[in-house]
Amino acid sequence: MPSRPLGILGTGLIGASIGLRSRAEGRRVLGWDPDDDAVRIALARGALDEGVTRARVLAECETVVVAAPPSATRAALESLRGGDASWSLLLDVASVKASIAKAGRGVTNFVPTHPLAGNEGSGPGAAEAALFEGRTWAYVPSGDEALDARARAFIESAGAQPFACDAARHDRIVAVTSHLPQLVDWRLAELIRAVDPEFERLCGPAAREILRLAGSPRALWREIVEENEANVGDALAKLVRALRAEEGSQGDGGPAGGAR
Amino acid sequence: MPSRPLGILGTGLIGASIGLRSRAEGRRVLGWDPDDDAVRIALARGALDEGVTRARVLAECETVVVAAPPSATRAALESLRGGDASWSLLLDVASVKASIAKAGRGVTNFVPTHPLAGNEGSGPGAAEAALFEGRTWAYVPSGDEALDARARAFIESAGAQPFACDAARHDRIVAVTSHLPQLVDWRLAELIRAVDPEFERLCGPAAREILRLAGSPRALWREIVEENEANVGDALAKLVRALRAEEGSQGDGGPAGGAR
Repeated sequence: MPSRPLGILGTGLIGASIGLRSRAEGRRVLGWDPDDDAVRIALARGALDEGVTRARVLAECETVVVAAPPSATRAALESLRGGDASWSLLLDVASVKASIAKAGRGVTNFVPTHPLAGNEGSGPGAAEAALFEGRTWAYVPSGDEALDARARAFIESAGAQPFACDAARHDRIVAVTSHLPQLVDWRLAELIRAVDPEFERLCGPAAREILRLAGSPRALWREIVEENEANVGDALAKLVRALRAEEGSQGDGGPAGGAR
Repeated sequence: MPSRPLGILGTGLIGASIGLRSRAEGRRVLGWDPDDDAVRIALARGALDEGVTRARVLAECETVVVAAPPSATRAALESLRGGDASWSLLLDVASVKASIAKAGRGVTNFVPTHPLAGNEGSGPGAAEAALFEGRTWAYVPSGDEALDARARAFIESAGAQPFACDAARHDRIVAVTSHLPQLVDWRLAELIRAVDPEFERLCGPAAREILRLAGSPRALWREIVEENEANVGDALAKLVRALRAEEGSQGDGGPAGGAR
């Protein structure tokens, strides 16, 4: 284990969960967040040893995790480009990778990553030490094998399984496994809530899951979907085509359609 | 508790789960299914005391549950219309209610019902005694208060919560809480499976739930959706409109759209 601390820039759900897990493994964790409350809650939850400045995280930590929404992650990477680096590994955890990988070009020892983990909550209050246990944690190989090995070791120390995946392929896959389902879920939840004042009485397990997922943080998801716009747009077009074909086939017969 | 046995016509997932639960409460359960294997498996699972003929179920049982897909349920009700009844309560459990209520007019002591419970399995092998525990179990009031009270007592004996709901309203609600989500789920699962040979590596909890639900018995669901065609068609049209509006808004800017 590295002797210098782990640093977390952004102590929300993912950042604080990494902190909880790392501290449980005996590692010292420094954290910073633009929102003082997020640091205070992360400290209270035991996800950090100390809340410090962003500059101290960057100067003192062996590994630095940027755990922020995509646009804030890009901004952070652009500010670090070409500068001196005292860290041996810097990684992000955003749900899109092509725009992040591009923003991170020229940042020393940077590896773009994405843990396939989360819950419907947000912020450090929803953090869990076991959030990454057994999950895939994708990373975009840097080409520097020693650096990539450090990224894999970090991912494994969080309990997750490293998966090497280039950024364009990653974004194409998560558009359909994650981003499109979230878009559709919001729309289904709207239809469910609008149908009848007592809709909850006639919700089975699938509908309850739809309503639960619809509670995911909307602003963060909007940003993710827009960063992956081309892929999500393709997937959405395919889904709309399939559903319109379904509309066309309604009324064509079958047990209830009869002779119409 | 009635002294005569409970009878189950159709020992699939729902019928066998009712049998398991009723036998656990000390009630004697007779069952019939057009598929001998379904009876054999239900007996082996302990969901029935005895496999008998359909005629014996109808002649000997105090309460008779028709637990079949919608079209088979309608056929069963039509065959019972206007005949003598030795049962004091006959109920169905199909996922649509307007077409069933219509088919059951003139069937003595009939109450249309729908337990909001299930799992992704099918057949008596997937049955669970606790399947209905805490779930809503909708029923369409018959207008005969003594009969409706018997239906509520039966529902409560299965661990579920009775919910009185007229048939048209029921079908309008489940179109969006259950039937439309199942249609959409199949299409999302197709997109997920087609995107990349390693799609499973980048599936989080939501995608895994989509793939699990897509395994629900397709023929049964197709029949349910077709029996509720008008409501599902309306809901599908609303969803398609909402998703096309979403398509139209893609590329309009936001954090990633910049100045375009």
